[in-house]
Amino acid sequence: KSVTGFNFLAIALASVLVVLVGTIGIHLIERNNFPSLFDGFWWTMTTVTTVGYGDFYPETIPGRLLGIFLFLFGIGVIGVLIGKIVDGASAYKRMQREGK
Amino acid sequence: KSVTGFNFLAIALASVLVVLVGTIGIHLIERNNFPSLFDGFWWTMTTVTTVGYGDFYPETIPGRLLGIFLFLFGIGVIGVLIGKIVDGASAYKRMQREGK
Amino acid sequence: KSVTGFNFLAIALASVLVVLVGTIGIHLIERNNFPSLFDGFWWTMTTVTTVGYGDFYPETIPGRLLGIFLFLFGIGVIGVLIGKIVDGASAYKRMQREGK
Amino acid sequence: KSVTGFNFLAIALASVLVVLVGTIGIHLIERNNFPSLFDGFWWTMTTVTTVGYGDFYPETIPGRLLGIFLFLFGIGVIGVLIGKIVDGASAYKRMQREGK
Ligand SMILES: [K+]
Ligand SMILES: [K+]
Repeated sequence: KSVTGFNFLAIALASVLVVLVGTIGIHLIERNNFPSLFDGFWWTMTTVTTVGYGDFYPETIPGRLLGIFLFLFGIGVIGVLIGKIVDGASAYKRMQREGK
Repeated sequence: KSVTGFNFLAIALASVLVVLVGTIGIHLIERNNFPSLFDGFWWTMTTVTTVGYGDFYPETIPGRLLGIFLFLFGIGVIGVLIGKIVDGASAYKRMQREGK
Repeated sequence: KSVTGFNFLAIALASVLVVLVGTIGIHLIERNNFPSLFDGFWWTMTTVTTVGYGDFYPETIPGRLLGIFLFLFGIGVIGVLIGKIVDGASAYKRMQREGK
Repeated sequence: KSVTGFNFLAIALASVLVVLVGTIGIHLIERNNFPSLFDGFWWTMTTVTTVGYGDFYPETIPGRLLGIFLFLFGIGVIGVLIGKIVDGASAYKRMQREGK
């Protein structure tokens, strides 16, 4: 199922870009709430996957606007990436089965 | 993939409408828990994207009924909007590639 | 888009059934954490939509098993219901446009 | 709708495998935060369904990397499983209707 015109590489690159923006951005905007870059990365990943544990969240207006940017542009891209990973595993299994 | 008969503009308008209802509604219904309109907007966005950090949530019956309204009518609309954004990025990239 | 063989009425009935099981079940299993039926209903709705604010969650093994039942059987049914609501709004708008 | 080349059995097996990796892995990596295997199972299920109540979450770098593994490989697999369960219920109902 080709949900979009993107191939796996383009989606992976777009995902890395969105995650970098979230990670670095929130660490710069709310250094008190996100003291390390890894905290920013962890929050970004829990956000774009919509898991949202609530252990980290932004509290300032710029931080929340970055969050809403991740909602609108990250959730879709990471959703397509996760779909591609399932597709890839499915195709790999079919090839294994047919190759024998 | 045209998930629905809506075009981008119709979905964007419906999204704005749902988000306005959530933002203004929760600020009016539970002013203590949502002291500013921006708090209401932030809660509405974390709700309709299903991120649900838990930093804000309604505690009264009318507030929770507004939440359930957002679940039933907002999650679908915002989900389609996010899908359209990915589709748009995909179409833009394809046009760039073919146009050169 | 007919995701499933269910029509709207069948999905609505299945949704009501799943939500009733969650609402009544968690109120009976963990009366301390879910003192009212409406608390059980609110938790069930935040669960099957995957919003998961974390204001309510089960803490006993039977309560968590009911939660996992809602994950496996409720998320899909409510997801289809939300999709049908978007489809319905889309069809309604198309009919309005064509009918005039 | 055959989202993937997997059949129900393959998806169920992949789901069990991913859930076992999450359950056992987080119990071994963060024994303080996940004192029982059932706590690990409950956290894994709230994670791969993206409910994310926030009653349990990893706090160490290895624990969070296991979480991100579940995001990338678990959310898709469990999403397909939930889709198959809805498809199965739909097919069962259609067969019942036609068989009579
Ligand atoms: K969530
Ligand atoms: K959550």
